[in-house]
Amino acid sequence: MTKLNVIKIGGNVLDNHEMLERFLESLASFDEPVVLVHGGGKEASRLSRQLGVEPEMIDGRRVTDRATLDIVTMVYAGLVNKRVVASLQAKGHNAIGLTGADGNSITATRRCPQPIDYGFVGDINPQNINASFIIDLVTKGMTPVFCAICHDGKGTLLNCNADTVAASVAVACSQLIPTRLVYCFEKKGVLQNPDDDDSVIGHISPELFRKYKEEGVVSGGMLPKIHNALKAVEEGVTEVIIGNPESPFNSEGTHISL
Amino acid sequence: MTKLNVIKIGGNVLDNHEMLERFLESLASFDEPVVLVHGGGKEASRLSRQLGVEPEMIDGRRVTDRATLDIVTMVYAGLVNKRVVASLQAKGHNAIGLTGADGNSITATRRCPQPIDYGFVGDINPQNINASFIIDLVTKGMTPVFCAICHDGKGTLLNCNADTVAASVAVACSQLIPTRLVYCFEKKGVLQNPDDDDSVIGHISPELFRKYKEEGVVSGGMLPKIHNALKAVEEGVTEVIIGNPESPFNSEGTHISL
Repeated sequence: MTKLNVIKIGGNVLDNHEMLERFLESLASFDEPVVLVHGGGKEASRLSRQLGVEPEMIDGRRVTDRATLDIVTMVYAGLVNKRVVASLQAKGHNAIGLTGADGNSITATRRCPQPIDYGFVGDINPQNINASFIIDLVTKGMTPVFCAICHDGKGTLLNCNADTVAASVAVACSQLIPTRLVYCFEKKGVLQNPDDDDSVIGHISPELFRKYKEEGVVSGGMLPKIHNALKAVEEGVTEVIIGNPESPFNSEGTHISL
Repeated sequence: MTKLNVIKIGGNVLDNHEMLERFLESLASFDEPVVLVHGGGKEASRLSRQLGVEPEMIDGRRVTDRATLDIVTMVYAGLVNKRVVASLQAKGHNAIGLTGADGNSITATRRCPQPIDYGFVGDINPQNINASFIIDLVTKGMTPVFCAICHDGKGTLLNCNADTVAASVAVACSQLIPTRLVYCFEKKGVLQNPDDDDSVIGHISPELFRKYKEEGVVSGGMLPKIHNALKAVEEGVTEVIIGNPESPFNSEGTHISL
């Protein structure tokens, strides 16, 4: 194995059956090793409402009380994860679905309840990622499929951020093998002009990021995404691509590197 | 590794927090390799009712329509499986939670809808159990924890019987390594007198089984259990123990062998 791709897909892919199937088809015929990380937000909110638990989000993070922890564990680690794995198997692609608890692969620490008590929400412990276990599975021809449920090592599952799981896994693996991180979202990449879907910025370096920020070219929700991508690159990831669900396979999108 | 234990726990252990914790404590300090298989019936029925889907059982098998398949996938593969794995990790015991779809470890065939349409219920394909994958995990120091959700290899998850999953995994592994199968239920073993919990039959062979059947010593739900245990033994499992949640560790209970 010469390089590894850590690919993160979010709700825009998961909630669209056709788009998900197309993505998994591409993944199954891709000839490079992959670790897949998925979210699954909408399905969790749907189940939550069915069970009479009104979802509560603060700054995009789900407030996770005990009932909500059970719900996200069921939806992310059960329903969404196993659907993705079964679909990959049907395409002749061997996959294995995992939470951070499985194989003790990712531990997290429950977020401090001050100033906001998010409940059972965890922040990844980057030094506690079992990269050799993950790479061993890949070497054996399996694609690990992670949801963002991790554990604290003391018996408690924690709801983590899937973007951060992907970045942390990529950084940990990059210490053992060259690793590329790809975030798939609904656009073709970071756009110069939000109204023009084809105005994709091809490359962002730390210097260009500073310039684009000053000029207001990138703003809002893209700022933390690019910031975290640059952090991952500084910590060892070869490059980060922000693009659409075809980006991992055609390398189009915004390339973020030093 | 010189021998393997496949241990099946059912609802009586899973639905009792204290009993489950005690069982997992014993497992974590047990010095022999284990594959754990669990059911999880009651929790699934509870969620089913909360979602307005009235559980329907025929001969102890859950009729599994599309909504029920999602429910059992969420409860068995998500909630119950990950709780068990996280609890074992907290006890310093490395575990990995799996469905039959993960690592393509167990495939099943959807049961014929005649004479009874059980929906998404599957029967295990014994020849399609990836025993070398399972044993490889054990050799690496992990305890695979299986729920009874399998897949048909064509993208569909199937609800299977946890007793059969345990027997099939044990038989497949026994082709590679001596394997013992232990069923943990609420009694100390197969009882000579159902009203006397201490009247455990120590050993059952095929000849003794015939005799006990004729004499009416064993009857009812125990008949298929012992029949399947003897079948597993004929197919290669060293012995089957039917006992309580301590039986895997103290070897008490009813020993079934040739």
